[in-house]
Amino acid sequence: MFKPNEDYLKLPGSYLFSTIAKKVAAFQESNPDKKIIRLGIGDVTKPLPKAVIEALHKAVDEQANAETFRGYAPDLGYEFLRHAIAENDFRARGCNIADDEVFISDGAKSDSGAIQEIFSKDAKIAVCDPVYPVYVDSNVMAGRCGDYDENTGMWSNVIYMPCTAENGFAPELPSETPDLIYLCFPNNPTGEAITKDQLQKWVDYANKVGAVIIFDAAYEAYISEDNIPHSIYECKGARTCAIELRSFSKNAGFTGLRLGATIIPHDLKVSFNGKEVEMHSLWARRHGTKYNGAPYIVQRAGEAIYSPEGKVQVKEMIASYMKNAKYIYDGLKEAGYTVYGGKNSPYIWLKTPDNMTSWEFFDYLLEKANVVGTPGSGFGPSGEHYFRLTAFGSYENTVEAINRIKAL
Amino acid sequence: MFKPNEDYLKLPGSYLFSTIAKKVAAFQESNPDKKIIRLGIGDVTKPLPKAVIEALHKAVDEQANAETFRGYAPDLGYEFLRHAIAENDFRARGCNIADDEVFISDGAKSDSGAIQEIFSKDAKIAVCDPVYPVYVDSNVMAGRCGDYDENTGMWSNVIYMPCTAENGFAPELPSETPDLIYLCFPNNPTGEAITKDQLQKWVDYANKVGAVIIFDAAYEAYISEDNIPHSIYECKGARTCAIELRSFSKNAGFTGLRLGATIIPHDLKVSFNGKEVEMHSLWARRHGTKYNGAPYIVQRAGEAIYSPEGKVQVKEMIASYMKNAKYIYDGLKEAGYTVYGGKNSPYIWLKTPDNMTSWEFFDYLLEKANVVGTPGSGFGPSGEHYFRLTAFGSYENTVEAINRIKAL
Repeated sequence: MFKPNEDYLKLPGSYLFSTIAKKVAAFQESNPDKKIIRLGIGDVTKPLPKAVIEALHKAVDEQANAETFRGYAPDLGYEFLRHAIAENDFRARGCNIADDEVFISDGAKSDSGAIQEIFSKDAKIAVCDPVYPVYVDSNVMAGRCGDYDENTGMWSNVIYMPCTAENGFAPELPSETPDLIYLCFPNNPTGEAITKDQLQKWVDYANKVGAVIIFDAAYEAYISEDNIPHSIYECKGARTCAIELRSFSKNAGFTGLRLGATIIPHDLKVSFNGKEVEMHSLWARRHGTKYNGAPYIVQRAGEAIYSPEGKVQVKEMIASYMKNAKYIYDGLKEAGYTVYGGKNSPYIWLKTPDNMTSWEFFDYLLEKANVVGTPGSGFGPSGEHYFRLTAFGSYENTVEAINRIKAL
Repeated sequence: MFKPNEDYLKLPGSYLFSTIAKKVAAFQESNPDKKIIRLGIGDVTKPLPKAVIEALHKAVDEQANAETFRGYAPDLGYEFLRHAIAENDFRARGCNIADDEVFISDGAKSDSGAIQEIFSKDAKIAVCDPVYPVYVDSNVMAGRCGDYDENTGMWSNVIYMPCTAENGFAPELPSETPDLIYLCFPNNPTGEAITKDQLQKWVDYANKVGAVIIFDAAYEAYISEDNIPHSIYECKGARTCAIELRSFSKNAGFTGLRLGATIIPHDLKVSFNGKEVEMHSLWARRHGTKYNGAPYIVQRAGEAIYSPEGKVQVKEMIASYMKNAKYIYDGLKEAGYTVYGGKNSPYIWLKTPDNMTSWEFFDYLLEKANVVGTPGSGFGPSGEHYFRLTAFGSYENTVEAINRIKAL
């Protein structure tokens, strides 16, 4: 008799956003006259930039014509997009990344879930706490995380690195040596970033102990301060220890269009059974076997954000979200809250008042201000007593939400 | 020190199409005046149907406007597409499939590679020989296949079911009991189909021994004969033992647009550690964790093939490829070849003449007729002495290629 993958059965239900949805629906039903404002989910709301729309229409027309029709895309991505990313996101910043070290995919979420597959089944992972759930859950599914403790909300075989106000939301080097280290900076959910010097310490550590850093740079476009790295390859030695995940979702509004890229330098290699193995070739093999390329029209849309007009439009989009972020940050400060993030990311992370739990504050905000956010404890135990608001709403709604909170 | 996934390292190089490409390039270089015709790769060449192009343009315009913009898609697919598939591809044929049993993805290749993840790590697989390589390779990567024997081209822990002229290209029930059975009919690469009665025997067998059939229906749109099933759910009892993979690539020309669907009935369940587990919920969890939905604009494009105009246009497209198939089939017969397939699929499978190996015939055809096909041995040991030609070229090229072969 066939059997299920028992590691899947270990996963606790993914209740965070469904619990939120249920609570909001129940509140709206009892209070049909209240206008609820949602600053909870990390999805963008602005339409795609004009340059992207134009590129999509043009590519669709190519697909309507036998002379210009394109079928299967190259497994690893079209050269025009791999080149645009390597040139604009890396070489223009002084990072030595070749076109063929860029792998195009249908999004950073898919890649952040799949990247663990190319490592050994007994690899030990280290994650920040709080953390984007995909890093841990995908490793649980692969059988690497041990058992779940419902009381602590932690897995027995995962190294957790707390990120709280006490350490400035910057994880400390772990005492136990991991094989894989997931880092996301600017961070989801805390909205805080780390400096280039801080990241350099992680690169040096990874090279020293023989670990690989999976660096999630999904929010790099929101960086406003000078000393914050946009890529881990700004650090010396990163080519031998780091994989970087890039997203088109938050910088260019591609959440519904799906496009991402993963960077694996040829220098990331390991000696195994007497042979030198490039992780680049393993990821290429995975793409060739379990994936079939991102749509041609979407890859053309991605290329368009690197055109002169595309760059201007993307900057304007980010500036408008960051205007929201500043309004939230300043408004909450004014109202007496202790607030983090929001300067190099679209997320504002606040300490709940009066030692409320994250969920108590969620209920309080929903009932008193009709504003929806995300309880920090939903991202891990060290997120307890914190709360996340996002800058992805409209400016009008953001202003109204913050004014309501200030009026409490 | 981190380690690679050693199961990846067991995979022999994927040399088939790269070897073909190298041989063709070398021949072209030595013979720059020869016009080579490629009937090797299974990629479509006709532009997307008009209804699809219109739906794409319309959806792109929606993404240009804040009022109609859509961000993250539902993990499992938009309701409009899940409904269109369940209604048109299943319920209209009398197959009892609910909308929520349809999972939308970026293509049948991704799903056929990933589906094994929801089963136990020691599941034993059975495949046809010759076979589409993804079924085996994805299981090798997951550590299920044992070791590779270079002499036989077989894995030690895989059940191979030969499909040759001797058994009418219909596999026989295996003597050893598998947990997962991969079946693709109409078949790639043989182009042959099995009848509903033949498939019913497999469903009965799977229910009896407690196996799951992964049924790849990628080529169902090419079926021209009445007694060939378009879906495994036409068979009684399939809801308790079968998963079906559907593709938009070959029927509607979506190879470059990327869209597929996987059907998992709620009735496919197993008792495990005293609990009843639905495989549907495991696949939903995988989608939620390691995937983020197909692009909205592509899902609208998929919906368009079910409109009255879309249905007509898709039928015309298939008819024109099948006109090629018939020309190839009849022409080769006339030239004295033993030919299979081509009636319910876009693939023609021929016996090499004079007991030539598949690769010898490849070289012969390239040198003498300047025509490129695919050596059957590249799909598995039982493909030796066979050769695949595809109907996806233009009519003019197809006619010229076959006339050249006839003239040999």
